Amino acid sequence: MTATPPAHDTSPEPPARRRGRPPRTESAGTRDRILTAAREEFSARGYEKTSVRGIAKAAGVDSALVHHYFGTKEQVFEAAVELAFAPALNASDAVAEGSLDGVGERLTRFIFGIWENPTTRTPLLAIVRSAVNNDTAAAVFRRLVAAQLLRRIAAQLDLPDAELRAELAAAQLVGCAMLRYVIKVEPLASADPEQIIARVAPVVQDHLTSP
Amino acid sequence: MTATPPAHDTSPEPPARRRGRPPRTESAGTRDRILTAAREEFSARGYEKTSVRGIAKAAGVDSALVHHYFGTKEQVFEAAVELAFAPALNASDAVAEGSLDGVGERLTRFIFGIWENPTTRTPLLAIVRSAVNNDTAAAVFRRLVAAQLLRRIAAQLDLPDAELRAELAAAQLVGCAMLRYVIKVEPLASADPEQIIARVAPVVQDHLTSP
Repeated sequence: MTATPPAHDTSPEPPARRRGRPPRTESAGTRDRILTAAREEFSARGYEKTSVRGIAKAAGVDSALVHHYFGTKEQVFEAAVELAFAPALNASDAVAEGSLDGVGERLTRFIFGIWENPTTRTPLLAIVRSAVNNDTAAAVFRRLVAAQLLRRIAAQLDLPDAELRAELAAAQLVGCAMLRYVIKVEPLASADPEQIIARVAPVVQDHLTSP
Repeated sequence: MTATPPAHDTSPEPPARRRGRPPRTESAGTRDRILTAAREEFSARGYEKTSVRGIAKAAGVDSALVHHYFGTKEQVFEAAVELAFAPALNASDAVAEGSLDGVGERLTRFIFGIWENPTTRTPLLAIVRSAVNNDTAAAVFRRLVAAQLLRRIAAQLDLPDAELRAELAAAQLVGCAMLRYVIKVEPLASADPEQIIARVAPVVQDHLTSP
């Protein structure tokens, strides 16, 4: 979805070069530069205060080029979220490897690993903040997290109410992240991650696989 | 804390009437009017975009009177949050009545009752949004939720790691609220509350009382 050109571009095969469009290699560099700028702008300002113009300025390009590569502000946000969420979206692979018996611990370790690493935590925090405050950003979050992450996990369960199970397991992990990393409630905020994982992993396991 | 006068007011007993200060009965009415206006302003705009001046205007009083009754913007926010949170703060009473065996279900029902009721949900949503986005608002949330609600629950447990247990139980409930009422992930957002309670209450119970 990220790479889909805007709707008005209907050329079946882009020519190697045409007026106003950079060649393929430069194109990839520009696109990445815009995406990096977008992620930084959304992280720093949140969804509402970020503008396509601000992203273009930060990337050193014209606004039209942002629209050309990504479309609307919502679509730029979706591409930036997808990039930031790439490690979390791999969580369903973490669930897939190995037996269902260890699924709770694997998923819990994976999610805490993302939150404990400052490089992956910062963009996640920005996404959570934007999603909590803006309906458009919440819709993007829903599409990516619900459709891509939770449904893929649910599909592997083969149990009744699999999607609801995956969401309630996610709720335990989301709530831990909120209280530990966003609101910073003590003693949870300073507790050893291993102590939290030891208490949370069995809960996630039960949500996913208990009869 | 709500009723504490600002620091510069050091009179041990306020006189019945003095220049610029309304009499006791009018005073109570004005204070309530300011507090109601504050709650509405914070709900509508969030912590950052709300100003003492805007609250004063909405209440039809001078800004100085808002400072007089509550102090800083942070203190007005704390008073407004305390008011909005009053039902949730009673959750520790819900835990207290009856045996520890049913504590998970009682607490879960209580919290879902608050979120399912639009009258109590709206101010809670505003508080959560403000706390996620602003460190000062998060600090107020921490003081009230952590100190008043979670610590009171923990005190009744008489188990090792009681505070961490209460926080992980709260994390399950906070995460459910986030995904159901804020992000609105399906099927959780439309599921029958009884179906959710049936799955979540045993988890809350385990966090609080399992060996």
